[in-house]
Amino acid sequence: MPDRGFTPTQLAARAAYLLRGNDLGTMTSAAPRLYPHMWSWDAAFVAIGLAPLSVERAVVELDTLLSAQWRNGMIPHIVFANGVDGYFPGPARWACRDLAAHAPLGMQTSGITQPPVHAIAVQKILDHSRRHGRTTRAIAEEFLDRRWPDLMRWHRWLANARDTGGNGRITLFHGWESGMDNSPRWDSTYARVVAGVVPAYTREDLVHVADASHRPSNREYDRYLWLLEEMKAARYEDAELAQSMSFAVEDVFVSAIFAMACEVLAIIGEDHSKPHSDVRELHHWAERFRKGVAQTADARSGAARDYDLRNDSWIQTETLAMFAPLICGGLDRETERALLRTFEGPKFCGHPDLRYAVPPSTSPVSRDFRPLEYWRGPVWPVMTWLFSWAFGRRGWAERAYLLRAEGLRQASDGSFAEYYQPFTGAPLGSMQQSWTAAAVLDWLG
Amino acid sequence: MPDRGFTPTQLAARAAYLLRGNDLGTMTSAAPRLYPHMWSWDAAFVAIGLAPLSVERAVVELDTLLSAQWRNGMIPHIVFANGVDGYFPGPARWACRDLAAHAPLGMQTSGITQPPVHAIAVQKILDHSRRHGRTTRAIAEEFLDRRWPDLMRWHRWLANARDTGGNGRITLFHGWESGMDNSPRWDSTYARVVAGVVPAYTREDLVHVADASHRPSNREYDRYLWLLEEMKAARYEDAELAQSMSFAVEDVFVSAIFAMACEVLAIIGEDHSKPHSDVRELHHWAERFRKGVAQTADARSGAARDYDLRNDSWIQTETLAMFAPLICGGLDRETERALLRTFEGPKFCGHPDLRYAVPPSTSPVSRDFRPLEYWRGPVWPVMTWLFSWAFGRRGWAERAYLLRAEGLRQASDGSFAEYYQPFTGAPLGSMQQSWTAAAVLDWLG
Amino acid sequence: MPDRGFTPTQLAARAAYLLRGNDLGTMTSAAPRLYPHMWSWDAAFVAIGLAPLSVERAVVELDTLLSAQWRNGMIPHIVFANGVDGYFPGPARWACRDLAAHAPLGMQTSGITQPPVHAIAVQKILDHSRRHGRTTRAIAEEFLDRRWPDLMRWHRWLANARDTGGNGRITLFHGWESGMDNSPRWDSTYARVVAGVVPAYTREDLVHVADASHRPSNREYDRYLWLLEEMKAARYEDAELAQSMSFAVEDVFVSAIFAMACEVLAIIGEDHSKPHSDVRELHHWAERFRKGVAQTADARSGAARDYDLRNDSWIQTETLAMFAPLICGGLDRETERALLRTFEGPKFCGHPDLRYAVPPSTSPVSRDFRPLEYWRGPVWPVMTWLFSWAFGRRGWAERAYLLRAEGLRQASDGSFAEYYQPFTGAPLGSMQQSWTAAAVLDWLG
Amino acid sequence: MPDRGFTPTQLAARAAYLLRGNDLGTMTSAAPRLYPHMWSWDAAFVAIGLAPLSVERAVVELDTLLSAQWRNGMIPHIVFANGVDGYFPGPARWACRDLAAHAPLGMQTSGITQPPVHAIAVQKILDHSRRHGRTTRAIAEEFLDRRWPDLMRWHRWLANARDTGGNGRITLFHGWESGMDNSPRWDSTYARVVAGVVPAYTREDLVHVADASHRPSNREYDRYLWLLEEMKAARYEDAELAQSMSFAVEDVFVSAIFAMACEVLAIIGEDHSKPHSDVRELHHWAERFRKGVAQTADARSGAARDYDLRNDSWIQTETLAMFAPLICGGLDRETERALLRTFEGPKFCGHPDLRYAVPPSTSPVSRDFRPLEYWRGPVWPVMTWLFSWAFGRRGWAERAYLLRAEGLRQASDGSFAEYYQPFTGAPLGSMQQSWTAAAVLDWLG
Repeated sequence: MPDRGFTPTQLAARAAYLLRGNDLGTMTSAAPRLYPHMWSWDAAFVAIGLAPLSVERAVVELDTLLSAQWRNGMIPHIVFANGVDGYFPGPARWACRDLAAHAPLGMQTSGITQPPVHAIAVQKILDHSRRHGRTTRAIAEEFLDRRWPDLMRWHRWLANARDTGGNGRITLFHGWESGMDNSPRWDSTYARVVAGVVPAYTREDLVHVADASHRPSNREYDRYLWLLEEMKAARYEDAELAQSMSFAVEDVFVSAIFAMACEVLAIIGEDHSKPHSDVRELHHWAERFRKGVAQTADARSGAARDYDLRNDSWIQTETLAMFAPLICGGLDRETERALLRTFEGPKFCGHPDLRYAVPPSTSPVSRDFRPLEYWRGPVWPVMTWLFSWAFGRRGWAERAYLLRAEGLRQASDGSFAEYYQPFTGAPLGSMQQSWTAAAVLDWLG
Repeated sequence: MPDRGFTPTQLAARAAYLLRGNDLGTMTSAAPRLYPHMWSWDAAFVAIGLAPLSVERAVVELDTLLSAQWRNGMIPHIVFANGVDGYFPGPARWACRDLAAHAPLGMQTSGITQPPVHAIAVQKILDHSRRHGRTTRAIAEEFLDRRWPDLMRWHRWLANARDTGGNGRITLFHGWESGMDNSPRWDSTYARVVAGVVPAYTREDLVHVADASHRPSNREYDRYLWLLEEMKAARYEDAELAQSMSFAVEDVFVSAIFAMACEVLAIIGEDHSKPHSDVRELHHWAERFRKGVAQTADARSGAARDYDLRNDSWIQTETLAMFAPLICGGLDRETERALLRTFEGPKFCGHPDLRYAVPPSTSPVSRDFRPLEYWRGPVWPVMTWLFSWAFGRRGWAERAYLLRAEGLRQASDGSFAEYYQPFTGAPLGSMQQSWTAAAVLDWLG
Repeated sequence: MPDRGFTPTQLAARAAYLLRGNDLGTMTSAAPRLYPHMWSWDAAFVAIGLAPLSVERAVVELDTLLSAQWRNGMIPHIVFANGVDGYFPGPARWACRDLAAHAPLGMQTSGITQPPVHAIAVQKILDHSRRHGRTTRAIAEEFLDRRWPDLMRWHRWLANARDTGGNGRITLFHGWESGMDNSPRWDSTYARVVAGVVPAYTREDLVHVADASHRPSNREYDRYLWLLEEMKAARYEDAELAQSMSFAVEDVFVSAIFAMACEVLAIIGEDHSKPHSDVRELHHWAERFRKGVAQTADARSGAARDYDLRNDSWIQTETLAMFAPLICGGLDRETERALLRTFEGPKFCGHPDLRYAVPPSTSPVSRDFRPLEYWRGPVWPVMTWLFSWAFGRRGWAERAYLLRAEGLRQASDGSFAEYYQPFTGAPLGSMQQSWTAAAVLDWLG
Repeated sequence: MPDRGFTPTQLAARAAYLLRGNDLGTMTSAAPRLYPHMWSWDAAFVAIGLAPLSVERAVVELDTLLSAQWRNGMIPHIVFANGVDGYFPGPARWACRDLAAHAPLGMQTSGITQPPVHAIAVQKILDHSRRHGRTTRAIAEEFLDRRWPDLMRWHRWLANARDTGGNGRITLFHGWESGMDNSPRWDSTYARVVAGVVPAYTREDLVHVADASHRPSNREYDRYLWLLEEMKAARYEDAELAQSMSFAVEDVFVSAIFAMACEVLAIIGEDHSKPHSDVRELHHWAERFRKGVAQTADARSGAARDYDLRNDSWIQTETLAMFAPLICGGLDRETERALLRTFEGPKFCGHPDLRYAVPPSTSPVSRDFRPLEYWRGPVWPVMTWLFSWAFGRRGWAERAYLLRAEGLRQASDGSFAEYYQPFTGAPLGSMQQSWTAAAVLDWLG
């Protein structure tokens, strides 16, 4: 007898049980074992999943993250749980507290950033608070008032420090900043990174996965760590990094997320009477980055591209990054429809061998496709959620509904895996992943 | 013990049972007793409800309606079921077959039209067909190919014959054409209609409702019928009507629906490779009517208005018509947000005494408000559906979700009433109304 | 992409849509094409499905069936829809009106009977009526008052005319009376039937199925029809049949259903103050048949057997009939648990190759097993329902729940097939079968 | 706008979130604040709620409880969380470790017991484990093997030490042992308790509730505590207590639970090949206590009664205890139906003013009824669950379904209160009560 799958109520119960089980008090670990700390975009997704359960707790999640914000505005990609070991590279390796002038005093963090999806979480918190009584609404609004300047600083830092040229595209100095660590998008750039001497280390990520081939190789890992050394040499100074880093790319997907997030935040600002100048600035950034994203797109297919600043060349891959303009808009109507056809067609969601009609991280027809390897092929439920949500925002209710329906079918195995094999539906990576549970909870309302 | 309400599966089963019970073979009666014929916009909503149950049957519904299309392009507001009596005014009173050069040969119809929501039904049929196998998809696509010219003729007739001045607003020659028969919107216009001698008649609508005060008065009815006499004198000629009718208004709500429907149809056309010239024309109309609607809006509040062509004056009411720009867009951002605040605030969905947070047909704070009288106050589930769907299309997923949730709560009484008392939730008018069931079925997926 | 399956609300809507679509006015055809008439036990199951949708309509279904009851008490296995042709053997072949003294005047029927599941339908009607207001309750109770004598006559006829020896087992004179027409249970009995000259005929059942091998063979059919000629020669007289029929078996499954139905009816009688003598009689029959069923059971395994009265021999098969004592009780505790283990073990629901954990009509490990042939292997959803319901009555809530869950998983393909291939889940026989929809509707509440 | 209620998926998510939030590691606190420790029957219900979420965690819950079992077999009514203060009377007041020869070494417990519902939890764990793979099944079975002797010791202690006369009724020495602390059932008995000098104390239960009138009075509390002093004087010796306690009643409700639990455990034993002698003993106890319960019942109405051993008199109240025979069976058919009619009639579930059709702890028509006071009137969801589950076991599927449906309607407010005002549905006592969440989780599957 094949596995029977969980019903919607069973699935909702399991997701909520998981999320509270991963709760460390004021932060939710990304997953029980592999990821015992708080990741920046995980935290945002977690808050989205917490919002329907407890607006109060969702607020705490973002408060914890924002309390580790750097003084220059950066939200670091990891906030380390106090006293929890077992993750490499840990605080000692990053050495931010020692080296970075802007690092926060109270909390240990990494020295890079991650995709700016946090405005979505803020919106979800406000939305859910409206379904409750006065007290809950007040908590959400008080949170917004308190954190609005921090959210502005975060967006301003991205718009300024990470788009110095004003191209409307976010520059990354490490593949990890994209959130899609080993995506084929960064292969050529990493290939040009000449790793110097890296202090000795032991990988921790391999301890928790059954098959090391699903994870980045040691060689890749060496380069990842070399970039840390370069950053440390630059003392994590924004201006320095822009000069010295051997990895520097304009990430079109992060840029699209930023454009969208600026718009979301602008609307929140309008709804809650935030300073006009802030709202105006946000709209302006939204517009600049929407254009920046659109400029990378192939004129006919609409497929977006990253840009390698060190090699002065476009990076064209058949990965989710292609679809960046669908997140933020900006293409002309006809090109956008062509890009939607690619998304829904046999290269992605419509590939005939897919178990569920959800987008794999890399197209199965690409030479780079590996069905088991992290961002080189597997399906990431949180990405399905992001596209589903973004499509709803674009007014494509039917498309949003179908991604949700398929995403839920996939999740009904109850593993809440980090990622899945696209053809078999086998769960991969960490099980009981917080953001996968969060996506399910948001979908189930 | 208060009534327990039906669960979602029970509600879905009852809605589907109702819809097939109202099925007359190739048309679905609007309701079992009060409305034994096919109404134009009812038929479109019915097709939306049928699409998830049977794409094939949904196609038949629209085919029946379109087979009664007039040769000038008009879709008449009633297609009479053969051999079914008991509705006044019936075919004899309209006398279209005798008088109207454009009336169809095969079927008996009325001589006026109704709001053009049909493109939504076409889109839903195509959407649902994609969830099925090849055969069902082929049926939907063959339907589209077959009926595309008719749909174009329908939209072209509205754009030309009913907007002769090119203002981007649809002119109506009878309140019934608005679908909101006795709305306060038409009070002043009707007040100026001087009814001549009306041939004797007996009302049928009063036979089926418990309380005549929920229906239009006899005096109102006399005027309704006088307008028929005027039309008959004009032999239902478009040009004639524009000159001679004593009732002539630009309906901002119908205009907004038309703008939206043109856009929906344009996108369908693009997706299915319909002639570029058609698609272009549809986009053009969408734009023209979106502007036409926006021009009626109050600069600060965004509230839209109808226009009385005979009295050359704006008609400002606190009815659903105010919100026309939310259906089609076109307001600047700030005005639109003001209008949304009115929609969600204490004048409409947020009125503190409402049983469910859904928009009443007329605002409870208006002098015209009557909680039991048809379009003067009661909540119409099909309107809740229309706004929910339109908000989804506008990218307001949260708002769409909340209207759906509240609409389903209201419908869980299982009466599938035509309309409801806004404060008590008491079902009113006809029970077992097809379009109410259709709305529920679409909501329940 | 594999078929996605329907959600519970979609499934409920489709089932209800189907049931009303098969509605002929005062009877529901068993299936749209293959079975255009009313069958006795189909009608009872249909009423079970209608009860949650419309108590009123469910009452009509049973009223129609009971209006065709024979004067001796027999409920005939078919009530022919007026003026609907296309079923063989039809009224002319049965010739009941001409030959049978007890046949009803008004309606055309067949001359044999079917399993007495009707008391379940009566109970469901009463149960659902209690969830509604006074009017609906009154309709259900008035129905019970009106039909109580008929129900008693029906049960009395079974207890007397069909158990002349008082063994506590119902005698059948045709395999069709078992409802499991071509089950291996009747192979040996049929093998001994020597068919005389059968008037010429054309089978209609083969017109509507894709593959004739799923249906009984022509040779089998000849014997089926010969038995009709024997009955006609006996003018359908109960006493005559008992003497003359070459097919005469004690059906343990029908006997178990009867025992259970007597108990159900007795409880209804107690609850509604029916004559004490009736209630006592029903309890008495329940007891007699429970014992009669238990006597057929293997002492160790608990497997029940049919009995061939012409050949004076037990009929032991690995079919659903084995499990008759689970329906009505009567085994000692230990034997019953052994029989439950067989039901749940690898011979039936636990067979490793089954698509869903529901009981196939014949065990896959039996030599008689044919996965595609009607009662020789396929899964019948209505049987899954019957066991699930009976298990609930026995106090085995968990077992009832699991059969329901698996039955719903199977039904989520939306075909509402008459029966399914047990390994692949492929739908077989007639699609859109009323009783399959009814089972789903009862399960979905 | 009235509160909208949570949908089933939302409710399931909240219940699971709550249950994990109350998780202290190896025990689940009964509620976040008022009850920071483990209660015996709370723990069993909690395990029932955990079983669908995590068989492993449910096993831990019972393991923790059983690790505090006394050496004489008693499961104590409280297991104190290490290092958690704030509950009175705490370990110091009970002084079991110092005084009781049988008290466990490792854990601090109270010195009395609570209703033996634990077999239900064991069965649920086994049931749910069967829906999972081999590993989970093994965990459940290994648990059963490991704890079977403890479960037998528990039941044996109840059958022997608490039914010394062999009447088939459990004797209690404190009202708290019934779980229904201040029920009118114990009023007359407590009235006869002459409290001696009670060491000084401060109540903690009043700290956490808004209105002290919902809780027992100080005078009642004095008597509660005096009984502890009596027990301490008897050093918690079973034989001593039977002689010396001024409170000694035969609790018919606990007795019925015990009869049912013995049968459940017997069936588990049969299914898992436990020693025949154990199974036989369990069946024997089940039979003895079923009879013991039935003997207390009024011959006509079937209403069961408690018995005061000190005053040699029956205690007849209109409380849930009346319905004890419905839990375990044993009445003749007619009397049982009379008792069911009382349960469903205007004295209990059918009282016209009830918000939901669930049984209040004391009948609203009783003089003892207080709608806000603990066990003197409020509805306890966990009791609704118990009756619903027991009715399912008795074969009354429809009754079980309706209690579940109404129980879920009540719980959809999302407060998961300990108890509710029966007329208004207002949540009372502790919010976020673990066993209320557990009931909801079991109901939602």
